[in-house]
Amino acid sequence: MAQAGESKQKLRDICRIAARIFYEKGYDGASMQDIAKAVGLTKAGLYHHVGSKDRLLFELMNYGMDILDETVLQKVKEIADPREKLRQTIIGHIDLIVRARDLEITVILHENRSLKGALRKKINLRKREYIHYIENLIAQVQEQSGGKPLLPPSLAAFALLGMINWLYQWFQPEGPTKQSELTEAYADFFFRGLMGSTPPA
Amino acid sequence: MAQAGESKQKLRDICRIAARIFYEKGYDGASMQDIAKAVGLTKAGLYHHVGSKDRLLFELMNYGMDILDETVLQKVKEIADPREKLRQTIIGHIDLIVRARDLEITVILHENRSLKGALRKKINLRKREYIHYIENLIAQVQEQSGGKPLLPPSLAAFALLGMINWLYQWFQPEGPTKQSELTEAYADFFFRGLMGSTPPA
Repeated sequence: MAQAGESKQKLRDICRIAARIFYEKGYDGASMQDIAKAVGLTKAGLYHHVGSKDRLLFELMNYGMDILDETVLQKVKEIADPREKLRQTIIGHIDLIVRARDLEITVILHENRSLKGALRKKINLRKREYIHYIENLIAQVQEQSGGKPLLPPSLAAFALLGMINWLYQWFQPEGPTKQSELTEAYADFFFRGLMGSTPPA
Repeated sequence: MAQAGESKQKLRDICRIAARIFYEKGYDGASMQDIAKAVGLTKAGLYHHVGSKDRLLFELMNYGMDILDETVLQKVKEIADPREKLRQTIIGHIDLIVRARDLEITVILHENRSLKGALRKKINLRKREYIHYIENLIAQVQEQSGGKPLLPPSLAAFALLGMINWLYQWFQPEGPTKQSELTEAYADFFFRGLMGSTPPA
């Protein structure tokens, strides 16, 4: 088991370095040689760990989804109230996107045109599970608040994901807006858009 | 003048084809040879038109911003009421993003890590002008509606751009949601989030 754990950690280290190189050179512009060199492996050693360049991209994206699970979803799973659960999910997801440490992985995760066939389907399935989780929470919040929903949960979910995932394009953690201000402003904005009013925090 | 017009059209044709190839192969994965072949020029002929691969990427992004100007901003510039102007800008921008014809150009426009130095600065300046236009409209809408603004115009502007620019990730024009439903739902959602209520259309 220690060996399996070490091997998982090694794979994650490789993914993190590969993300930086894909981010800088593009998936097609980065060679396995570039990545092997940055990781400190021979090219053969790198292939031994990851199988192929496609597989490496898949593992990197899969790792991106693992980070979402581990740092966002695990933390909110005990929350029973749907509004609070959704609010905490928004806060956690924003934190993930603006965290410099994971920037390259989350950006590459969303540029998945380079991934093809069955591997792409697997990643898209994991993304869809997360979208369904958000949609379900939104539907529960709408139901709890009574009245006719103002927009379909799926459109609200994608509006939310767009707002959050776009942050990497502009938000500077060292800039004029503090992360806590951003998070509060965005959560309130979303709940107003969803329901016409801000729920108590 | 006819010659300048023809040359501009030729450049736009090249940009459109290059966008498709960059979209498929990535900027670094696509060679000038690939693009020359797709355009029906020799490699030397392509260099004659665009100068360099960097310059081609710049021209393509510049063309993306021209499309935004020509198909969105020109159409709303006579509208005096800020709410209506903002609403029509939202409708026009959504239409631009979901229009299959311009998908590749708008996607490449936002993946501008490949562009470096002065050319990147020029594109970012054009993007910033558009963001300021949206921010100013939002500030006018907030002022018109009176009361204390619920969030800073810049955060509202980026939330809006995120919602809209993310559409390329999921919206299918042939899918279950009609573009007109999407547009209305998103414009209403945005105005509710901004002001706590939906303005009359």
